[in-house]
Amino acid sequence: MKNVYLDNNATTRVAPEVVEAMLPYFSDFYGNPSSMHSFGGNLGLKVREARARIAALLGAQPEEILLTSGGTESDATAIHAALAAYPHKRHIVTTRVEHPAIKNLFEQYGKNGYRVTFIPVDCEGRIDLDEFRASLSEDTAVVSMMWANNETGVLFPVDEVAAELKARGIVFHTDAVQAVGKIPIDLTRTDVDLLSLSGHKLHGPKGIGALYIRKGTKFKPFMVGGHQEHGRRAGTENVPGIIGLGKACELAAGKLNDIDTRVRGLRDRLENALLEAVPQSMINGERANRLPNTTSIAFEYVEGEAILLMMNEHGIAASSGSACTSGSLEPSHVLRAMGIPFTAAHGSIRFSLSHYTTAEEIEFVIEKMPPIIARLRQMSPFWQKAAQSG
Amino acid sequence: MKNVYLDNNATTRVAPEVVEAMLPYFSDFYGNPSSMHSFGGNLGLKVREARARIAALLGAQPEEILLTSGGTESDATAIHAALAAYPHKRHIVTTRVEHPAIKNLFEQYGKNGYRVTFIPVDCEGRIDLDEFRASLSEDTAVVSMMWANNETGVLFPVDEVAAELKARGIVFHTDAVQAVGKIPIDLTRTDVDLLSLSGHKLHGPKGIGALYIRKGTKFKPFMVGGHQEHGRRAGTENVPGIIGLGKACELAAGKLNDIDTRVRGLRDRLENALLEAVPQSMINGERANRLPNTTSIAFEYVEGEAILLMMNEHGIAASSGSACTSGSLEPSHVLRAMGIPFTAAHGSIRFSLSHYTTAEEIEFVIEKMPPIIARLRQMSPFWQKAAQSG
Repeated sequence: MKNVYLDNNATTRVAPEVVEAMLPYFSDFYGNPSSMHSFGGNLGLKVREARARIAALLGAQPEEILLTSGGTESDATAIHAALAAYPHKRHIVTTRVEHPAIKNLFEQYGKNGYRVTFIPVDCEGRIDLDEFRASLSEDTAVVSMMWANNETGVLFPVDEVAAELKARGIVFHTDAVQAVGKIPIDLTRTDVDLLSLSGHKLHGPKGIGALYIRKGTKFKPFMVGGHQEHGRRAGTENVPGIIGLGKACELAAGKLNDIDTRVRGLRDRLENALLEAVPQSMINGERANRLPNTTSIAFEYVEGEAILLMMNEHGIAASSGSACTSGSLEPSHVLRAMGIPFTAAHGSIRFSLSHYTTAEEIEFVIEKMPPIIARLRQMSPFWQKAAQSG
Repeated sequence: MKNVYLDNNATTRVAPEVVEAMLPYFSDFYGNPSSMHSFGGNLGLKVREARARIAALLGAQPEEILLTSGGTESDATAIHAALAAYPHKRHIVTTRVEHPAIKNLFEQYGKNGYRVTFIPVDCEGRIDLDEFRASLSEDTAVVSMMWANNETGVLFPVDEVAAELKARGIVFHTDAVQAVGKIPIDLTRTDVDLLSLSGHKLHGPKGIGALYIRKGTKFKPFMVGGHQEHGRRAGTENVPGIIGLGKACELAAGKLNDIDTRVRGLRDRLENALLEAVPQSMINGERANRLPNTTSIAFEYVEGEAILLMMNEHGIAASSGSACTSGSLEPSHVLRAMGIPFTAAHGSIRFSLSHYTTAEEIEFVIEKMPPIIARLRQMSPFWQKAAQSG
């Protein structure tokens, strides 16, 4: 059976070159970089090289890169640091469409004495910059706004927000887990203070991530203990993971052009073909301003989970807009925040491509999807009712 | 050149069987276990298998195992959970010889409104149980006591402490990072509530660890965000790491006997030979009650770092008692807490063996060490002075 993996915003294939780079550091050069002996073949040097590669992908300096266990820890570390740096400030600004790593974290802070403003988005997933500006106050400790939305791919105005916050002296964190490796990022031009990224979203390993901390940003460690990472993150360095992330970042830099051109073309071909072949289908989110690899398509009057199961029978992997990981059948908070009607949000499928995606795979999906939707609609009482009233 | 790795309490070689078990999950079965599609070959099942293997090594139930990024995160999670469960209690009890992951964490809590009792140890590294009992109060939220000390290998009376705390209804956490995989642990007999372990200390990968949470123990997540680990630890599961840790635990169970007999014999041979060959050398810590793989030997009037550098020239890896990772030349807080004289603490070397250690390697070290110490003592003004006065 075919395996067509279009769920790259969930996780990615670790690039074979990345595995190859990591392999010697499991059983051959397995030392602890903090040790006094040279056993393990210059692990410190290898970690420095990896850090430089991660920094290079962001337009950052190596010493601005803190290595963590992943995107969630990077987010938690960033927010912890920002709030600890300004303990008298008790206001947080974010959006209604953040990843759960930020959303749930801020809901918890909201229960613990912080005031949290969740900026709404319009039906295309965009925030209103005036509304954002109006939310800021002297009491605002940190703003956290994702660079790109994980479900729709919609890009946020990080440049404008960064400039505004810089002028007002408010710390700016961006969860760029979905953006890094998919679009060019240059932190010499975009003035964010803190930026989270995750290895497994860009063909690196799971269990490794990084937090960019702009030089001069006040910092307090989230993971306390040993003196690793210059006292900024305790815990034995995950050497193979770090080397893998470094290699993945180096590879990603070389793939940005392919993603912006060929992969974008495949994504556009996929969504145009599906919109044409499937009645009452539509794109969720602002089409012009999205990640080039992502499309979220609403197929009205069908259940996302049922679609995924039938896609799975053809070996096609994607994901639904709904928060399946929570075990609830509520539609995703992102699509709800956009005001997508219930009947459309429930039948939304996110296709997320990678540089491994081929034209042949996309044509296969274009062939298989319309009959799946048609078959499910035949069984859908909502569809029957909509068809009758239509 | 030879490579004789006797620094297994710092980190271990990842067993080739572990690497083999992990490998398919990087580039072939790379899905996200939270996804709705079957891409990735039953990742959920593989994670469950690994969890069962980890639990089996501890005499625990699989659902009592929380997967983390390592020992430091496990420790932080345990203490966070215990303190959050009893927010009105403001007292913590621990020892003076804990790993920095606990020591520095509690020093921080000490600055943030908690009273922390650091129970002292005697010159052999043992706590006084009466003193421990006397430290407990109605206000004590949690006791954290390591199972085995990382520097000396001295074992702590976790059974007695667990029984005492159970009777008093106080949460008991043990940092068992150095004990798991080196001595048998059976949590059906030892009534700890929370236990930390780390993959890379038992021939598993770096960047993965676990926290045992006894059924019924109150819990609040430290890493907040997505719904992974039944809402107890957010962040995409590190699937290869988890599978690797599971395999490492399975292998460790089969090596316990070898460690208790052959490896213990090698350790004893090493320390007896060095004590005999090197004047003014001694064992740090209670000899009878230690991990079978560990010996900390003080060579008076020489510098640990200098010894390590000369050992390194022969390809022998070990570590000094001093906290080299902090960049300071202070002797280790463990040896200081034991009241080891400055001149002995500074010249202390920890040798930590594994089941990979061979008799030939130990004989090589026995041959190389005495001339190293003798040569360094010739250059040591302290030694000259001691020799003159002796």
